[in-house]
Amino acid sequence: MKVHHQTIEVSTTGKGTYSITEAVRDAVKQSKIHNGTVTIFVQHTSCSLVIMENADPDARTDLHAYFDKLVPENEPYFIHTYEGPDDMPSHIRMVLTGCSEVVPLINGDLALGTWQGLFLFEHRVASHHRRVLVTVMGN
Amino acid sequence: MKVHHQTIEVSTTGKGTYSITEAVRDAVKQSKIHNGTVTIFVQHTSCSLVIMENADPDARTDLHAYFDKLVPENEPYFIHTYEGPDDMPSHIRMVLTGCSEVVPLINGDLALGTWQGLFLFEHRVASHHRRVLVTVMGN
Amino acid sequence: MKVHHQTIEVSTTGKGTYSITEAVRDAVKQSKIHNGTVTIFVQHTSCSLVIMENADPDARTDLHAYFDKLVPENEPYFIHTYEGPDDMPSHIRMVLTGCSEVVPLINGDLALGTWQGLFLFEHRVASHHRRVLVTVMGN
Repeated sequence: MKVHHQTIEVSTTGKGTYSITEAVRDAVKQSKIHNGTVTIFVQHTSCSLVIMENADPDARTDLHAYFDKLVPENEPYFIHTYEGPDDMPSHIRMVLTGCSEVVPLINGDLALGTWQGLFLFEHRVASHHRRVLVTVMGN
Repeated sequence: MKVHHQTIEVSTTGKGTYSITEAVRDAVKQSKIHNGTVTIFVQHTSCSLVIMENADPDARTDLHAYFDKLVPENEPYFIHTYEGPDDMPSHIRMVLTGCSEVVPLINGDLALGTWQGLFLFEHRVASHHRRVLVTVMGN
Repeated sequence: MKVHHQTIEVSTTGKGTYSITEAVRDAVKQSKIHNGTVTIFVQHTSCSLVIMENADPDARTDLHAYFDKLVPENEPYFIHTYEGPDDMPSHIRMVLTGCSEVVPLINGDLALGTWQGLFLFEHRVASHHRRVLVTVMGN
């Protein structure tokens, strides 16, 4: 059994989803592991990791709009506000969407469905440098 | 260390939750692996995998009703609409609930709590044929 | 490859988030495993496991308030109500936030980001005794 850890760095320029499927596939190839699991883990509390429809970018536009509505800025009861109005919503959006995924690794490739893509979901307005850990484990 | 992959096929007939606990337990038995983890992964972007109360079906009825309210159809700002009004809500509901779970495998069985069941959560109205991957890894 | 299972017991005294980061770190140390993954799994359907900002407790106060608003008690359409008004919302909040996380294990430690903490998110008003399974797998 082998374990391979690799860090992917993602530069984000505002709220939205950033595809990391190819970067994760590259990490899997470098691991030379063929069967097992791939754990993808975002080391932050104001962005998330999601699996989402990868074909029509309109679907992601609607997803972003929905989350802006679901977790609004400037809720009168928010007290964690010193980092700006997008700070507290970013933590809540992260909790609602999660920061990790585990994808089966079969015959050397991520076993994603046809329409599934891996995306870093950035919840902050300012540019950020994000770290995503990929852990490949198996034979 | 051994790795065992198996595919479960689920035929869905409209929105709702479909129990897959027994099918996953069968895959675990066939793996002959006794200690490790079981990764359950749905290969789609319009249904999800959830762990939910397995005793009273009313709890799942309320869950379905809640999600219909939380992510309504026909939001005026939706632009990803060509596959019908249940399409975009299905992607959002999937992002909110996730498409994978990892359950500890102890002494040959899924270490679920007494009231936990594994369910495929279908978000589309039309009938679908769904694929769920089960990856058992351990000793 | 080694597998180490350990149970953490958490006594909760009402709704809110309870830090379990140190208890999980202790389980990891006892496993003597250095590289792989750590799966943390809550065996209940009315509390969840979340990764959340660990520095400012105000962020968690806002998170609790947000969930009270997002999933209200006493929705007129709820039919699963015999265990009290906090029962059905607890199941929905669990589905929205999930009951497991997988964190990479690198050089003997959980690879959490600087501001990430592991919390049991209790959704019931009454005191409960909760069980969290930690499965460490790797070399």
